[in-house]
Amino acid sequence: MNLTLYYSPGACSLAPHIVLEELGIAYEAVRINTAEGQQRSPEYLRINPRGRVPALAVDGKVLVENVAILSFLGGGFPDRGLWPRATWDQAQALSMMAWLADTVHPAYAHCFRPERYVEGEACREAVKASGRKSFGDCLAEIDRLVAGRRWAVGNRFSVVDAYLVVFYRWGVRNAFPVRDLAHYSALVDRVLARPAVKRVFADEGITMG
Amino acid sequence: MNLTLYYSPGACSLAPHIVLEELGIAYEAVRINTAEGQQRSPEYLRINPRGRVPALAVDGKVLVENVAILSFLGGGFPDRGLWPRATWDQAQALSMMAWLADTVHPAYAHCFRPERYVEGEACREAVKASGRKSFGDCLAEIDRLVAGRRWAVGNRFSVVDAYLVVFYRWGVRNAFPVRDLAHYSALVDRVLARPAVKRVFADEGITMG
Repeated sequence: MNLTLYYSPGACSLAPHIVLEELGIAYEAVRINTAEGQQRSPEYLRINPRGRVPALAVDGKVLVENVAILSFLGGGFPDRGLWPRATWDQAQALSMMAWLADTVHPAYAHCFRPERYVEGEACREAVKASGRKSFGDCLAEIDRLVAGRRWAVGNRFSVVDAYLVVFYRWGVRNAFPVRDLAHYSALVDRVLARPAVKRVFADEGITMG
Repeated sequence: MNLTLYYSPGACSLAPHIVLEELGIAYEAVRINTAEGQQRSPEYLRINPRGRVPALAVDGKVLVENVAILSFLGGGFPDRGLWPRATWDQAQALSMMAWLADTVHPAYAHCFRPERYVEGEACREAVKASGRKSFGDCLAEIDRLVAGRRWAVGNRFSVVDAYLVVFYRWGVRNAFPVRDLAHYSALVDRVLARPAVKRVFADEGITMG
C-alpha cells in the first residue's frame, strides 16, 4: 500500500502523522505550507478540493477527514494495536474523534479563523471571544473524560490519543491553562514520551511549548 | 441487544431513527422535547451530559455522535446491507459523515443558533448571514458529490443516505434552493420512497416541505 500524508506542521494533520510513524510502515509525508496558502494552490486543490489538511493518498486515491483517516489507518493494521479491538470501544473511539472534529476543532477555529464565520472586524473579535470560551470548556471536558484513564479508549495507546495531543498543544501555545488539567496533562505526557511521537515532532519542526 | 434512541422530531437524530427502522430490529424511540428545553433536564443530562440529541442507549450504555451511532448500527448488522462492505467504501462513508457532522451541521447551526457562537444581537445577525452562505455552499457541494450516483457510497442505500436527508430537509424548510440541486434531490427522492423512511417521518410527525 502506497501512503502519502499531506500535512502542515502543528495542524490537526499531526494526529495521522503520529499514527503513521507509530505503525512503523513506509509512508511519505508531504508538507503543505499553509502560512503561504499552499493549501489553496491548484496542485493541492486537485488532491483535496476543500483546501484543508490532512489528506491521505492511498495508492493514489484520496481520503480526507481525520475521523476517517485515523480509523482507516488504525483499523487497517490491527496487529499494531492502535485501534481498539472490542466493538464498543471502536464505537467510543469514533464518538470521541467525531466530537473532537465537530465541536473541539471548530471552537478553536472560531478563535483563530473568525473570518470563516463572520464579516466585519468588530464581530470577528466577538466570535473570537466566544470561541475562546468554548475551546476552554472543551479542554476542561477532555480532562474530565480521561480522568482515571491511562489512555483515552480501552487500555492501550490508540489513534484517539494521537488526536488528543493536537488540541492540548494548541491550548498550550495559546495560553489556555491546560497545564492545570491534571488528567489530560498526564495522558499527553505519556504520548509525548513515545519515540515515534518525538520523531514526528522533530520532523514537523514543532515543540509542545 | 436493547436499543433506545433519544431523538427530537426533525433534528439530526432523524438519521439514526431511519436506520433503526430500516434494520427492522426492535428498538425504543424516546422523544426529547427540545423546543421546551428537555435536552437540558437533569434526567436527560444523565443520559447525555452534552444535552444534545441523538443519544443511543445500548444495553444501558450510551453512545453519542451520529458518526459513531450510524457506523455502529450499520456495521453491527452487516446482513442488512446498510454499511458498505469494502474497506475503502467504509472509509469514504466515515469521511462523508465526518464532514456532514463537522462542517455542514455547524454551518446550519450558525444560521439557527448563532447565540452559540457570539454575544450581542448585531453580531448574531452577521453570524447568521455568514452561516447561511456556508450552509448553502455545503448543500451545493453535496449535490456535486452525489452527481452520477444512485446512492452516496457504494451501490446501495446506506446509513450515509439517511444522514443526507436531514440536511436536505433543513434546506427545504428554510428556503434554500435545494430543489434546484438535481442530483441531491433525486437521491433524497429515492430515500423518501422507502417504506421505513415514510414510517419514521410519520412517527416523528414531520414532513419534507
